[in-house]
Amino acid sequence: MEFINKNPALLLVDIQKAFLDKDYPGKKRNNNDAELICGKILEKWRELNLKIIHVRHSSVNPCSMLHESKPGFEFNDHVKPIKNELVLTKKVNSAFIGTGLNEILRKSKIKTLVIIGMTTNHCISTTVRMSGNLGYETYLISDSTACYNTLGLDGNEIDCEIIYKASIASLKDEFAKIINSDELLKLMI
Amino acid sequence: MEFINKNPALLLVDIQKAFLDKDYPGKKRNNNDAELICGKILEKWRELNLKIIHVRHSSVNPCSMLHESKPGFEFNDHVKPIKNELVLTKKVNSAFIGTGLNEILRKSKIKTLVIIGMTTNHCISTTVRMSGNLGYETYLISDSTACYNTLGLDGNEIDCEIIYKASIASLKDEFAKIINSDELLKLMI
Repeated sequence: MEFINKNPALLLVDIQKAFLDKDYPGKKRNNNDAELICGKILEKWRELNLKIIHVRHSSVNPCSMLHESKPGFEFNDHVKPIKNELVLTKKVNSAFIGTGLNEILRKSKIKTLVIIGMTTNHCISTTVRMSGNLGYETYLISDSTACYNTLGLDGNEIDCEIIYKASIASLKDEFAKIINSDELLKLMI
Repeated sequence: MEFINKNPALLLVDIQKAFLDKDYPGKKRNNNDAELICGKILEKWRELNLKIIHVRHSSVNPCSMLHESKPGFEFNDHVKPIKNELVLTKKVNSAFIGTGLNEILRKSKIKTLVIIGMTTNHCISTTVRMSGNLGYETYLISDSTACYNTLGLDGNEIDCEIIYKASIASLKDEFAKIINSDELLKLMI
């Protein structure tokens, strides 16, 4: 109950269909169950009637799978917003830039944020960093997020598991508490 | 000349003595010449009379080597501010939070930022991400930055070279152009 009493908001970042596409840049991804896990967490937030904020990425690049004209822009079936759930649309990686998110959270007196979604090293890492630096008690759910193979400076691909582990390690304790979905759901009882 | 005509500002992030200390958390670091290279870049900016902004980290933790009361808080000898060079002090990782940096850059009509300093996966990564997301044409100088071994989620240390490579790969093209100091200095002729 202690955790629920903090009135934590759930921030779902970029859980969109593009990330199911095998041709998404990088191609090989880890944590294939991430979206399913995000759906389970969302269900718990709905059950407890806690604040839910959906954030989706609208790419300014017309060729991107995340451009509004593309099927990849749609929310993943596991996390489709319902009823009056807030949906914010962003153009850059951080969910805090150009969305009014910080002001929305301040007005709602929310001080604790649970962040889930895609991708670990780009939009999640950027959003978690800003959340921590703006003073929110921030939780990142480790199995709710995934990333892709990424090109290194030398032109060689770095495996998604290495990118994932290094990203999580860099966020851990410095910007957020990192727990998995089982640990989170135990806090919600 | 094309690059100089953009009036790029040099942002020196956290180039402080704490990072020379062998007991800095993580202990093993890469790129031991990073501060020397930062000094060479700073010299070029002074020679060309371009905008220089020093940012230093003032930890709120009294036990941190970066607390104002500790010798580690001091600027590294290679990059000590002189004359009227602007010095900003930050309390969190991002040089944009709590410093007024964005407003300073907007007022100076600066649109291009060259970022150097410490550490790659914490303050540099956070500052580069915000710089790119706020719309600045952002350059990160690959050999001007370094990081430390970092504890992974499983409790095992991840080597600083892996953390470095994954951090740079995650920033590359998504948030910044990554070039080394030789490439930068060639652009400054």
